[in-house]
Amino acid sequence: MKFSPPQYVNNLKCLVCGSSYSHGNIFTCPHCGIEGILDVQYDYEAIVQNPKSLPAASLRQAGAIRNPQSSDIWRYKDLLPISQEIPLPHLHVGWTPVYDVPRLARYFGLRKLFLKDDGRNPTNSFKDRASAIGVMKAMEFGFNTIACASTGNAASSLAGLSAAVGLKSYIFVPERAPEPKITQLLIFGATVFRVKGTYEQAFDLSKQSCDQFGWYNRNSGTNPFLVEGKKTAGLEIAEQMKEHLPDWVVVSVGDGCTIGGIGKGLQEMKQLGLIDRVPRLLGVQAEGAKPILDAFASGKDLIPTGTNTIADSIAVGTPRNWRRAIQQVRSSHGEMVAVSDEEILEAMRVTARLGGVFGEPAGVAGAAGLKKAVEQKIVKSNETAVIVITGNGLKDIQSAKQAAGKEHLVEPTLDAVAELLEKQLKL
Amino acid sequence: MKFSPPQYVNNLKCLVCGSSYSHGNIFTCPHCGIEGILDVQYDYEAIVQNPKSLPAASLRQAGAIRNPQSSDIWRYKDLLPISQEIPLPHLHVGWTPVYDVPRLARYFGLRKLFLKDDGRNPTNSFKDRASAIGVMKAMEFGFNTIACASTGNAASSLAGLSAAVGLKSYIFVPERAPEPKITQLLIFGATVFRVKGTYEQAFDLSKQSCDQFGWYNRNSGTNPFLVEGKKTAGLEIAEQMKEHLPDWVVVSVGDGCTIGGIGKGLQEMKQLGLIDRVPRLLGVQAEGAKPILDAFASGKDLIPTGTNTIADSIAVGTPRNWRRAIQQVRSSHGEMVAVSDEEILEAMRVTARLGGVFGEPAGVAGAAGLKKAVEQKIVKSNETAVIVITGNGLKDIQSAKQAAGKEHLVEPTLDAVAELLEKQLKL
Repeated sequence: MKFSPPQYVNNLKCLVCGSSYSHGNIFTCPHCGIEGILDVQYDYEAIVQNPKSLPAASLRQAGAIRNPQSSDIWRYKDLLPISQEIPLPHLHVGWTPVYDVPRLARYFGLRKLFLKDDGRNPTNSFKDRASAIGVMKAMEFGFNTIACASTGNAASSLAGLSAAVGLKSYIFVPERAPEPKITQLLIFGATVFRVKGTYEQAFDLSKQSCDQFGWYNRNSGTNPFLVEGKKTAGLEIAEQMKEHLPDWVVVSVGDGCTIGGIGKGLQEMKQLGLIDRVPRLLGVQAEGAKPILDAFASGKDLIPTGTNTIADSIAVGTPRNWRRAIQQVRSSHGEMVAVSDEEILEAMRVTARLGGVFGEPAGVAGAAGLKKAVEQKIVKSNETAVIVITGNGLKDIQSAKQAAGKEHLVEPTLDAVAELLEKQLKL
Repeated sequence: MKFSPPQYVNNLKCLVCGSSYSHGNIFTCPHCGIEGILDVQYDYEAIVQNPKSLPAASLRQAGAIRNPQSSDIWRYKDLLPISQEIPLPHLHVGWTPVYDVPRLARYFGLRKLFLKDDGRNPTNSFKDRASAIGVMKAMEFGFNTIACASTGNAASSLAGLSAAVGLKSYIFVPERAPEPKITQLLIFGATVFRVKGTYEQAFDLSKQSCDQFGWYNRNSGTNPFLVEGKKTAGLEIAEQMKEHLPDWVVVSVGDGCTIGGIGKGLQEMKQLGLIDRVPRLLGVQAEGAKPILDAFASGKDLIPTGTNTIADSIAVGTPRNWRRAIQQVRSSHGEMVAVSDEEILEAMRVTARLGGVFGEPAGVAGAAGLKKAVEQKIVKSNETAVIVITGNGLKDIQSAKQAAGKEHLVEPTLDAVAELLEKQLKL
């Protein structure tokens, strides 16, 4: 079966050399190689002019919202690189809640603070936004199998979305991948290859296997379409917060796709007239894995590094999308900071206790970074911010245990409880 | 500070002797003791007549929906026993998605099947609906501390909602409670007492401590208000599915509160004219913990049993709300079935692989029960059903591991992958 291409996609443009290619199943720029990440370009004028794209009353000026009843990313169908002929996955991806958290704001010393809880996606992470597009593109290009190398959220989200639409999924994990993460893949019916070797070997084998066996490649970074899924978080922040648009949007940074995507979404909403300025991006890396921050600070090309952080979802030493990340941070007049594992654990506690949101380490790294940025007066105390919490804390109970503190062992008597309460009061 | 009582609550009525009590911080009926579960009674006529309660265009006949913009349980504010003066918790509880899952329907041999994924609540289980009401009542009655005995979803949800509104929480767990479950409590800042003894000892100590130290008691079953939170799932099923109301609503049953609450919600929506019939309830217990099913079958009073099932969230040998559960199942002309642990593990796999939803064992027990009910012709193949998935699979990775199957260990070569694919094809 042949599907028509996405209605409003003009072409794919190389972020390095600027060459344009027509829409199709291509990955990086043939001239620039692996560095030549492609960006999907849309015909925004046509979107705005299409009466079917017209939004709900309050959003009439912007053509972005095709179906405001849809409580998921498909409300932005016309801004996504998907064929209109393919049935959408039934899982509700995106349109995650934005919470006003005054107690956490006070703790950080900020006038107003919001959390956008992306741990509430179907497989409990931000990555569902990308995988939803991934499975749509696999179907459009005629694949019945999709593959990636990952131990983390990209993999579980691919397994879940593939199960939802009935695609086969093959996932390559390094030998040392933890059992609980593998369980999430297997339960959704993914075939999991535990590769005797490192993550890089698993990655290479997944790419070779895609070429050899005819599978669609969902490895982020080089796939030009996945970042379009990620941009939906930026579209949502603009739409959900347009009455009180924050000064800062805070995002943890690993590969660079997430912040790059969110930045693009915000830019598009400005272009479509839904918001009249783009908030500043605050990109947060872990101190043990900050090659993008280093490139941002030096103004030079990225130098790959090793990685050493508990925030495994952003522990990326060779990020593919560093140019897109830095470009978006700069064009928003944003900043970048790095945080220690200690600061991340502290952020897990305060985000849960003062914000009611339990995030995994990479998920709350943004919170740790915002605290630091306020302390360093990068973010002013009279400014406002939203932090994107990118993954649910249940994903990584081991790290949470380090952050959580200890319970009290008591005899089954009231006296024992009273004694402990007494002690607590004295602390 | 003193708060006015819930606007439309008339009184609390004993499910055993029928006596009525005025609204207040009481638990079971003074005449009937622990058996005398109280039911919250509303003035439905007043709700319908209040112009402020008027719903969105399509729902004008029913007075149920006060704020259709609110994508959570507070859209049913007027049908909940909460004071209008207390700020609502900011976490979005409820209004969970309903998915049409044709592949799973075919597998079960049903014409049409839906999943309502309650694992997408803020702390990833159905129990958030009850805890949201629990913290509101604690504040209304002037408490700053709330407590319960639980190792499971009731506890993590209480910890999360308490953190959200700034209440202190004290949670009593039995000595053998698993570490990961305790971590979820501690990260939200709950004080956790690991009681040297059984669950019953932890339960008794929590109740004594509430009396002694002046804490609000969130132990389900005896608290008359919590079930009102649970009924919101029934209200939602009616509103979300009113165009294609299913023949059956399928719910796993432990203490009896959940199915009792969902039944009440459906009844209310019929009373308010939003739906014109109440779907039949299918209650599903684990074979290793089925005292309510036994009482349903015998027509006699409940006899407490031991428990032996992997579905820990419904492993209840002495259920408090069995009368409410049986009453609701009967008045809907419903049925009950029991399922083995094997069948539950199978349900975990197929719900994830054919429905895209990863549920914990108790969360998918309903799916296992529906399969059995179709096989036994209790549910006919030309009927339709919705299964409430009550908890996210990440809550219990150990059980998921039993269900998930194994990964393949491979050398980092294409030949090794090719060989395994060959083998898979032969299976």
